[in-house]
Amino acid sequence: MSELRKDPIVGRWVIISTERGERPMDWRQESILKGGGGVCPFCHGNEKKTPPEIMAHRPVGLLPNGPGWDVRVVPNKFPALQIEGELEPKGFGNYDMMQGIGAHEVIIETPSHSKDLADLTVEQICNVLLTFRDRTLDLKRDPRFRYVLIFKNHGSAAGASLEHSHSQLIATPIIPKRVIEELEGSKCFFDLKGRCIFCDLIQQEQDAGQRIVLLSESYIAIEPFAPRFPFETWILPKHHFSHYEEMADNLYFELAEVLKETLGRINQVLGCPPYNFMLHSSPIQGGEKVEYHWHLEIIPKLTKIAGFEWGSGFYINSTPPELAAEELRAATMA
Amino acid sequence: MSELRKDPIVGRWVIISTERGERPMDWRQESILKGGGGVCPFCHGNEKKTPPEIMAHRPVGLLPNGPGWDVRVVPNKFPALQIEGELEPKGFGNYDMMQGIGAHEVIIETPSHSKDLADLTVEQICNVLLTFRDRTLDLKRDPRFRYVLIFKNHGSAAGASLEHSHSQLIATPIIPKRVIEELEGSKCFFDLKGRCIFCDLIQQEQDAGQRIVLLSESYIAIEPFAPRFPFETWILPKHHFSHYEEMADNLYFELAEVLKETLGRINQVLGCPPYNFMLHSSPIQGGEKVEYHWHLEIIPKLTKIAGFEWGSGFYINSTPPELAAEELRAATMA
Repeated sequence: MSELRKDPIVGRWVIISTERGERPMDWRQESILKGGGGVCPFCHGNEKKTPPEIMAHRPVGLLPNGPGWDVRVVPNKFPALQIEGELEPKGFGNYDMMQGIGAHEVIIETPSHSKDLADLTVEQICNVLLTFRDRTLDLKRDPRFRYVLIFKNHGSAAGASLEHSHSQLIATPIIPKRVIEELEGSKCFFDLKGRCIFCDLIQQEQDAGQRIVLLSESYIAIEPFAPRFPFETWILPKHHFSHYEEMADNLYFELAEVLKETLGRINQVLGCPPYNFMLHSSPIQGGEKVEYHWHLEIIPKLTKIAGFEWGSGFYINSTPPELAAEELRAATMA
Repeated sequence: MSELRKDPIVGRWVIISTERGERPMDWRQESILKGGGGVCPFCHGNEKKTPPEIMAHRPVGLLPNGPGWDVRVVPNKFPALQIEGELEPKGFGNYDMMQGIGAHEVIIETPSHSKDLADLTVEQICNVLLTFRDRTLDLKRDPRFRYVLIFKNHGSAAGASLEHSHSQLIATPIIPKRVIEELEGSKCFFDLKGRCIFCDLIQQEQDAGQRIVLLSESYIAIEPFAPRFPFETWILPKHHFSHYEEMADNLYFELAEVLKETLGRINQVLGCPPYNFMLHSSPIQGGEKVEYHWHLEIIPKLTKIAGFEWGSGFYINSTPPELAAEELRAATMA
């Protein structure tokens, strides 16, 4: 069982694996060990090499844990958090901790080993996005969880340990610090102005135009004004939605179009870089929020994070977002 | 001139280089470009290959910018911030920005290319630590600056672009977000309890013993209770000091002994890993702080940061600090 521990100074929680504690040499081979001896556990036909599936998108009549699927969700074989058990929060002097309870799932985006998310059809990407929604709606019913974070590590430099295209989901019993910061910042703005800050920024970006990557009927993709990383790109719904999982069906299809085109432009300009994306939505418990607006943050992995960034939380970015947006807009798509 | 820009949602500042904006392909070769054509600009005899020195530790009678030095401080040739100019803060709709004013200096820790910080004598490390102090005391007199962050990137994976052993200093006109979080957290604790939280933690760690790496008369090196990274190690003065630069001279010598031994133990257990260290001290303007305690954070660079960490600020650490401390205590030193 892993443990959730809280830093007593800044309140940041970490997940510590206390039981299968790795000896100093162990993690050096982690990526090789997880490779599963050369056979990809995410490929079509290898369904038995993963833990039993949680859900899958496959035609009616076909059996679970067999072939024929489009999108498949399985528990992570090396979960950071365990699904079974109670939180048992406790303190010890200045220290706070609880059991490492949560869900850690893998969303296999395609049965084909050679395709990346951006290569899939809009329909297939839409199935992935609907799967994100469906898993969130399911986990929302578990009162132990307060947040569902969906993210993707694409490429080894971005932290992916398997190259077959997949995303991940971690449901946590506490709201992550970075999300709390966004929630507090937008609450503060709403209290002052009576408006959602994201809605305000979308308006300002549409007026300015210089940081827009693309616009569709319902979405905007921008380079944010103060990006931490070169070519950091955000996708936001133009209308106010606090929860990703609560939108009308057609909006996921349109999001798939926008995501495919955005990733395609990033791939073209930067030569298919490793990247991460993170879906920031409202906490799953508690209803609609007037002050918070879900969005997807995409960060191509181009630079190394060094001591200054770790020590300060202050980022140095040598590519102005206006220039990055110009390059992405100019990319000619196949 | 670079620009400081503030994220309007979470208040995080970033440094954007707007003028010499790098084209998408440029930063791929950054480490090679900075290598200076195979001649190390930090080596003894190559003093003319750096900008003119700011200060150096060399015997009386020898000339600046020539050989004979032990420790040498020069402006960073590719500074993130410019020393000349005024801040000129301004707003634009929801966005806040100011000119990228600050100091960005390199502390060359030894004239020898082949030595790392941990290989130097205690006397030489002490000279480096006193140089950190002296540069901070000097920059403190500039009213445009509010914080001085000293940090080290050791090894390419930790972000170092030159292998010759060096640290860096960045003086900023705003207090970095990560430091604000620590200041706010410790202020909150002080308001509640009337004690410095770091002093409290030092006491709790001494009582528990299990996360101690080493103890000297005036310092403690520990693995923190909730470390973000495997083998993350903090060095703190046992007595309360809010400002690194305000200690008695003998405490820097003892710190050099503790730092040398701590790095030596990390090198032995982990096989000389790349690492970062960051010196967290109080803001330079404003006097002694009863609630904040300077400390040095060392993070060996062993794991990759991926989407979950970026998206959540929540870290997964597979090495419990109690195990890491045990390994570091057990290391037999040469």
